[in-house]
Amino acid sequence: MTGRRLVNGLESSAVAADDRGLQYGDGLFETMLVGEGRIRHLELHLARLEEGCRKLALPMPSAVLIRDECERAMEGLRSGVVKFILTRGPGPRGYRPPAEPAITRIVMASAPRPRSETHGPVTVRLCRTRLGLNPALAGLKHLNRLEQVMACAEWDDPRIAEGLMLSTDGRVVCATAANVFVVTEGRLVTPAIRDCGVAGVMREVVLRAARQAGIPAEVQDVYPDDLEQAQEAFLTNAVIGVRPIEEVVGLRRWADGEVTRTLSALVTGGGG
Amino acid sequence: MTGRRLVNGLESSAVAADDRGLQYGDGLFETMLVGEGRIRHLELHLARLEEGCRKLALPMPSAVLIRDECERAMEGLRSGVVKFILTRGPGPRGYRPPAEPAITRIVMASAPRPRSETHGPVTVRLCRTRLGLNPALAGLKHLNRLEQVMACAEWDDPRIAEGLMLSTDGRVVCATAANVFVVTEGRLVTPAIRDCGVAGVMREVVLRAARQAGIPAEVQDVYPDDLEQAQEAFLTNAVIGVRPIEEVVGLRRWADGEVTRTLSALVTGGGG
Repeated sequence: MTGRRLVNGLESSAVAADDRGLQYGDGLFETMLVGEGRIRHLELHLARLEEGCRKLALPMPSAVLIRDECERAMEGLRSGVVKFILTRGPGPRGYRPPAEPAITRIVMASAPRPRSETHGPVTVRLCRTRLGLNPALAGLKHLNRLEQVMACAEWDDPRIAEGLMLSTDGRVVCATAANVFVVTEGRLVTPAIRDCGVAGVMREVVLRAARQAGIPAEVQDVYPDDLEQAQEAFLTNAVIGVRPIEEVVGLRRWADGEVTRTLSALVTGGGG
Repeated sequence: MTGRRLVNGLESSAVAADDRGLQYGDGLFETMLVGEGRIRHLELHLARLEEGCRKLALPMPSAVLIRDECERAMEGLRSGVVKFILTRGPGPRGYRPPAEPAITRIVMASAPRPRSETHGPVTVRLCRTRLGLNPALAGLKHLNRLEQVMACAEWDDPRIAEGLMLSTDGRVVCATAANVFVVTEGRLVTPAIRDCGVAGVMREVVLRAARQAGIPAEVQDVYPDDLEQAQEAFLTNAVIGVRPIEEVVGLRRWADGEVTRTLSALVTGGGG
């Protein structure tokens, strides 16, 4: 079954046509995993949302309100995914943000996807669509996602689960809807998110778990050569957790990797 | 009075919360001037929309349907502005575009803004927010407009009418909602729109008018130094037509310029 949809706390599937979320992509979102009735890593999601609100000068709703609405949307679903969208709300024509925006909160709950879509090793491709550089927006999970849409439109082979995206200057930054890690000589590396890409909650969870487990973990630029020379590679996001990459089409294949397996075990069933 | 709003041809102000226009900014728009009951430069707006549809692989509605809906939205308004938005419509969670999208058409009409907001010389500023580079999206009037929103949030001095935006690599590309032209030694120059910015309909109208009037007109990169050294500068968009820049705050001031005046007269009351 599909969960409820709430708009500003009321059961609804309708948003005003003049909402700035639609007009300009002027807003943020969080996609959160719900397991056994509990939103996983809620604090980290709220922290990123708050950082986004600060950078976009959006009023941040209270944590209590957000959790309450997410839980109401999930009623009847013990597990699944809940997406929380925050926009600057309706406004007159023009890019300038209203001085006192009436923000819009949208919550959409959905049942878990089939396990095959979220678990197990994946084949990925290198997308042609690149990520434009803008330090002011980097890291945020904002509503301007056309680059990701265009990247996902590049392939329709169902064996390819994800696409890795390069920045316009040629770094491997992330997948369309996941962060990427490589393991090189026992050392974990994930690309810096300083001018493009999303700083995923699961990326943070994995970095913390690695450090706690004594696995050297660094945030630095990753180039296609680094990816090719890595001993392991995996994707992360809040819904899939850690998912090994078994092949980057045309670049290389990997067998099952020990660091990936260790980290996957550490973050699975975690929470917070 | 405010004109009607139509969603998929029906009088409505509501869009589905799962519309990809809202979820990802997955769509395009055109903002068109209506004068004496007629949409100005409709053919050029339709051509740009069609180009956008081609690049985003969106089905293009028929020109007849678009004109019909815009005219219906404008009923009761002899002049004003009509905004046509086209999105990839509702869809399941995930960036991948549906194979057969049920596109959403939104039409919003509004009365003319006060003449002081659209006519006469303007003071502009140089924005700190820069435009990220992405050749795949450059030129299109798509719904990912957070950079423009952030740029407009930089100032609240009502004497400043617009903000010029630089690309991340330092070129003057356009204003938040207008294109920019400079005149240097009788030669008209507007920045190339190859990796960021919107290729405005009025920009095209002005380039054509200049060439017909024997004014040398070129599309090439413009740097802040070029702006500072220009003899005239002006903004263009479909609603304001040609609007002289009298000052770039902190950079320089200009007196009334002959080329700007000539071009303004050529495109005013034009149409097509």
